[in-house]
Amino acid sequence: MSISEEVLARVKGWREYVEAKLGFRNHWYPVRFSSDLAEGQTTTLKILGEAILMKRIKGEVFAIRDRCLHRGVPFSKKLECFTHDTVTCWYHGYTYRITNGELINILAVPDSKLIGRKKLKTFPAQEAKGVIFLFIGDNDREPPPLSHDVPPTFLDEDMDVRGIWQEVKSNWRLGCENGFDTVHIFIHKDTVLRREREMNFPLGHISGNKPIETVEAAEGPKGVLDPFADHIPVWEGTIDGQVVVKGIRQPAGSEAAKRPSASVGASIWLPGVLKVDSFPMPELTQFEWYVPIDEGKHLYFQTLGKRVHTEEERTGWVHQFNSKLITAALHGFNDDDIWAREATEPFYANDLGWIDEVLCEPDRMIIAWRKLASRWGGAIQTQGHLR
Amino acid sequence: MSISEEVLARVKGWREYVEAKLGFRNHWYPVRFSSDLAEGQTTTLKILGEAILMKRIKGEVFAIRDRCLHRGVPFSKKLECFTHDTVTCWYHGYTYRITNGELINILAVPDSKLIGRKKLKTFPAQEAKGVIFLFIGDNDREPPPLSHDVPPTFLDEDMDVRGIWQEVKSNWRLGCENGFDTVHIFIHKDTVLRREREMNFPLGHISGNKPIETVEAAEGPKGVLDPFADHIPVWEGTIDGQVVVKGIRQPAGSEAAKRPSASVGASIWLPGVLKVDSFPMPELTQFEWYVPIDEGKHLYFQTLGKRVHTEEERTGWVHQFNSKLITAALHGFNDDDIWAREATEPFYANDLGWIDEVLCEPDRMIIAWRKLASRWGGAIQTQGHLR
Amino acid sequence: MSISEEVLARVKGWREYVEAKLGFRNHWYPVRFSSDLAEGQTTTLKILGEAILMKRIKGEVFAIRDRCLHRGVPFSKKLECFTHDTVTCWYHGYTYRITNGELINILAVPDSKLIGRKKLKTFPAQEAKGVIFLFIGDNDREPPPLSHDVPPTFLDEDMDVRGIWQEVKSNWRLGCENGFDTVHIFIHKDTVLRREREMNFPLGHISGNKPIETVEAAEGPKGVLDPFADHIPVWEGTIDGQVVVKGIRQPAGSEAAKRPSASVGASIWLPGVLKVDSFPMPELTQFEWYVPIDEGKHLYFQTLGKRVHTEEERTGWVHQFNSKLITAALHGFNDDDIWAREATEPFYANDLGWIDEVLCEPDRMIIAWRKLASRWGGAIQTQGHLR
Repeated sequence: MSISEEVLARVKGWREYVEAKLGFRNHWYPVRFSSDLAEGQTTTLKILGEAILMKRIKGEVFAIRDRCLHRGVPFSKKLECFTHDTVTCWYHGYTYRITNGELINILAVPDSKLIGRKKLKTFPAQEAKGVIFLFIGDNDREPPPLSHDVPPTFLDEDMDVRGIWQEVKSNWRLGCENGFDTVHIFIHKDTVLRREREMNFPLGHISGNKPIETVEAAEGPKGVLDPFADHIPVWEGTIDGQVVVKGIRQPAGSEAAKRPSASVGASIWLPGVLKVDSFPMPELTQFEWYVPIDEGKHLYFQTLGKRVHTEEERTGWVHQFNSKLITAALHGFNDDDIWAREATEPFYANDLGWIDEVLCEPDRMIIAWRKLASRWGGAIQTQGHLR
Repeated sequence: MSISEEVLARVKGWREYVEAKLGFRNHWYPVRFSSDLAEGQTTTLKILGEAILMKRIKGEVFAIRDRCLHRGVPFSKKLECFTHDTVTCWYHGYTYRITNGELINILAVPDSKLIGRKKLKTFPAQEAKGVIFLFIGDNDREPPPLSHDVPPTFLDEDMDVRGIWQEVKSNWRLGCENGFDTVHIFIHKDTVLRREREMNFPLGHISGNKPIETVEAAEGPKGVLDPFADHIPVWEGTIDGQVVVKGIRQPAGSEAAKRPSASVGASIWLPGVLKVDSFPMPELTQFEWYVPIDEGKHLYFQTLGKRVHTEEERTGWVHQFNSKLITAALHGFNDDDIWAREATEPFYANDLGWIDEVLCEPDRMIIAWRKLASRWGGAIQTQGHLR
Repeated sequence: MSISEEVLARVKGWREYVEAKLGFRNHWYPVRFSSDLAEGQTTTLKILGEAILMKRIKGEVFAIRDRCLHRGVPFSKKLECFTHDTVTCWYHGYTYRITNGELINILAVPDSKLIGRKKLKTFPAQEAKGVIFLFIGDNDREPPPLSHDVPPTFLDEDMDVRGIWQEVKSNWRLGCENGFDTVHIFIHKDTVLRREREMNFPLGHISGNKPIETVEAAEGPKGVLDPFADHIPVWEGTIDGQVVVKGIRQPAGSEAAKRPSASVGASIWLPGVLKVDSFPMPELTQFEWYVPIDEGKHLYFQTLGKRVHTEEERTGWVHQFNSKLITAALHGFNDDDIWAREATEPFYANDLGWIDEVLCEPDRMIIAWRKLASRWGGAIQTQGHLR
């Protein structure tokens, strides 16, 4: 569904962002972990509205639209791969090279003039940091380097990345805005993460008036930075003169209190990926993507990165990730974000939320993101692109 | 959804009624029994499309829209009431005074300029006869007295009211028309109520041509009266000269036959409430509301009133109500009305039923109601009012 | 929903066919077997969007719209037939003669002027070959002879017909096109039918260029013929020079190979019925209908016909049908067609499939069918006809 002109007319500063209900085209999106797809294995997924069939062939990952040109049926309904790099439609035998989408035969009509003349939509794939990225965009253009579509440091050589993914029932933009929103910290006040580490965890922030810093060099990722050092933390919630709730504050001399807060901060990057420094533990970085699935769902692709230089460090890190961080951080902490996004979805589902919302001062960071995404997001994915 | 002009053009006599798919604004509607909401308790409900959070505070009932101004999330998703008369949004700590809707703090952003300047939609509440009524309407107008929106005698001092409520999957108008329709008696011919009392129960009525009496004094309730004494009861159903079904008729000299039929009658009142005299038992009055929930559902709020003057009378009445009337009347008898309304819903759901129906002579009472409601219903609730 | 002009503008050669999402009116459609409806029994069904109540009265079948004129409720919600040839609405006693739809009484309002002046929509019925056919069309026109709406030989005196019916979740046209599509044979390559008979079963066909034969005599059925003798069978599927799958081919001298292939062929007939000669066994004919239920479902009415001349032949045939053919052919073989049609439905559900499909050479048979149906289908059923 396209967005009503009534709504678009009222969000002039970030019109493209509001239009991009299905996401921005011509970007790289993470979809699965490399370990999810063994040699010769296939899987299906949906991203930016596109139903996709993905296969690992001789080590490389390839992705095509999961829909036969002939009658529009999904190959995956009854997958027939007679050779390692082809898929044959179960209905009439239309056979495609998975690596380039070419129609190379029609088994039931082997003399057809269509053979060699038709091509299925393909999606360039690449892997980095154990993550499979797909490029959803125009087949007649060269995809940009992956480094333009991931946050800084993600691709650093010593960065070891691990994670999980799950489907969330909200539009992808509510994922971005929930993650980058520094005062949504309020919903985490009882988080299980408190059991795993000593930390300062305020109720919210009084945001300063410092100019907002963005990164917009042509040849690189585009993002908005929110260094937490700019904020004055809020430690107490007061109603009618009575303190009703408190943030978690470590004693002045404690280890946690001494930690240089300058290292902590969040930033959000196109095409919809958050970087949180020194989180969920010191020395870790959380990178998480909100990948559009359709207009009402996104793939929540959560990763944690740690710099490791020795095999011993890696072993310790793997143990920490598996034994604690999946449960306490990626699920325990972020599950609250998931239900928050799902609770927000109905207000924005008919697009009126974008003009009816009542934002407050710290939301200026979110507005900066909307504007940056409108400036640099590029082509908007539409239902028409799915034909 | 708004009603198509094609339909409205063809129902000139009761256009406003057909438009009022979501009900009429600026009226009092019953929503719960007083006993449903103890001191300090909260509950949620939906009426005329409005999602509402209701709380009893120091004895009084207050109601606000269950949706934070900021990001549109429902408070009730994770209710946080840090003090007895406030609600704090779980997402960013927007805190509202429940009694007047004022934004009195934002716990995560306590210096926000929004504080004290924004207000949540509120719904005036009052209690009478053990029933909580909410006023769904404009906040800048004084609600009318409750007595304008309930049938005569309901508020009488000696009237003791008890009841139940349930959700029905039909538009509220099909509730009104089912209840006020004197010939729908045909569906009750096997009612379990027959086991509880001796009564005359015809199959239908030949309605006379007497002018229809309405009540439309400016300062009072507006309704249409249908005194059953005007009708000639139909005792036998005949097909091709053969009697195929009979109404229930007591012997000429019996108690039931002697009862003065002049006391029996039905009337329907704005904003959608039926009064049935001497029903379901002699000396009782049934008052029942059909409160719009959304376009396809209504709250069926069923009450019985009996005049009681002594504690002994009250005790007997309470016993009668609890031991027999809930089962035999409010459920036993009226459950047939519920499935009838739900069976009617599909024909009217796309609004074409209003012009395709084939009404018969006794439906002139229903038409009188449609016209009265169009004259006096007032402002029509729309989806736009929910923003 | 009506089809968008954007789509219709691009399918000029078979516009009416694309418009006929709910089917063509003024045709005979099979709905149940005669044995499904005993004397005095009623049943309900939906065809071309019409909710229908059908009853056998003194041997004859009659069908009326299952919706009371008054308030639009379905009679079948609580069926009340007080006499053998009438139905009385449970709500107010509107009573109709089932044989002609006349409103003959209103039991709750026996003096109503409507009586004798209103008529319910009726659907002419007739039985042939143990099948009940209904005519869905205008009540002011004489239905054509049944012989115009069934394939040749179906009504032959020595033809004994047996079958089953089931509901399929796809538009009726995808049923027609799946059945008549000679190269969809590819999906049946593993069919259980192979266990029941020796047969040649190629992977597909190279279709010749012979002119397509149609039958369009004014006084008779209208159809497109596809004699399999015109095809060159495809026995091997080859990808990159490697044979990856083979059809089933009997040895040159075998019984199956000797069978005269000229007798084998398929044809499709208005209003949507396939005839397959010498199938699923030699000496049998499959006749199967794809009857629109609503825009997204069809009744798959499958029958097999065999010529029998003696009681002994009949007994053998009944045994063969019941013991083998239901399981191996009508379910075993055709169940693959069912899931294929259901897998195709999403691509055509929004009508864009009709312009986005990429047909191949043998699909010229299907195009011939689309054109014939557009020429001869006649009036298009619409939502408006259901009022």
